[in-house]
Amino acid sequence: MILASGNAHKLAEVCHILGRDDIQLSPQGLGEPVEDDVTFAGNALIKARYVAERTGEAVLADDSGICVDVLGGAPGVFSARWCGRHGADQENLDLLLAQLADVRPEHRGAKFVCAAVFVQPGGREIIATGTMTGTLLTEPRGAGGFGYDPIFVPDGYDRSAAELSATEKNLISHRGQAFRALALELERLGLS
Amino acid sequence: MILASGNAHKLAEVCHILGRDDIQLSPQGLGEPVEDDVTFAGNALIKARYVAERTGEAVLADDSGICVDVLGGAPGVFSARWCGRHGADQENLDLLLAQLADVRPEHRGAKFVCAAVFVQPGGREIIATGTMTGTLLTEPRGAGGFGYDPIFVPDGYDRSAAELSATEKNLISHRGQAFRALALELERLGLS
Repeated sequence: MILASGNAHKLAEVCHILGRDDIQLSPQGLGEPVEDDVTFAGNALIKARYVAERTGEAVLADDSGICVDVLGGAPGVFSARWCGRHGADQENLDLLLAQLADVRPEHRGAKFVCAAVFVQPGGREIIATGTMTGTLLTEPRGAGGFGYDPIFVPDGYDRSAAELSATEKNLISHRGQAFRALALELERLGLS
Repeated sequence: MILASGNAHKLAEVCHILGRDDIQLSPQGLGEPVEDDVTFAGNALIKARYVAERTGEAVLADDSGICVDVLGGAPGVFSARWCGRHGADQENLDLLLAQLADVRPEHRGAKFVCAAVFVQPGGREIIATGTMTGTLLTEPRGAGGFGYDPIFVPDGYDRSAAELSATEKNLISHRGQAFRALALELERLGLS
């Protein structure tokens, strides 16, 4: 099975969540589709279909992001390119913190959202979603995780998502919920 | 009367809208309040009250911004500090264009929103709002206006807000509507 992604952090997380080690990143040189949908599920399908069509393999993909209450749900599907270009985790995080510098604690609610999909070439398409609600910090904390994890404290915790162990985080995370729900559905359908 | 602002472009626009030339920018050295409300009207009141309390004069203020559909209404009240710092029009505009680079024409709807307020020291507070709907371009066009004007085409027009004359723009703009409504209300109350 292929995970339609170039992100090794994401692959490690998905393998951990699913308890599998037989999943691989997209083959190099495949190119990348334009993720121009305005929903997480739409963009995840764009990525998965692109790789499934070109490899003939069954493909997993996800699209996920952080949705900030006072930004009406943005960055949302733009989370990975918030600073204007893809794959700049630190700049994305720094920009979001700077934009929200004057926002008081009671208005710093946010949630992570993930849509995980499975696409069979010419066959089934399955979608599952997960959400993790919490609060944004004013400074990064912790060295684990990736993306916006260091500035996000999940509800019911006093540590940031980057201060949780992989096991703790995956148990409650948007991605954990989405991929576990997806795996259950694939098992039910005999597709896993 | 004072306009609680340090922006000479905004002063010119407000004077033009109201047909007055007796309005001045905030006195220098007054400092600036933290605009930490999450609504346009709330931030306009913060600015106006700050200046009214320190000068003893009647004060006008506005807070305005651009609300992008696919961003759930963001940048919104963060429009003037979208790149992470205040007063960087070009950087704010460049960032928004880069964030939306992959967004298709049918999803590029947006609106400008303005809340205009009048505050008497220890007295009345009046709020009026205005909205201008339109579509975002992929590249700036036109040399007039300021802020996000060069990338915004108002509904019913084929030119950007920066390609309209001051008279054309102020007739339809969010700020024009808000300040004209405010002036009417002040006149009705005998406060103008």
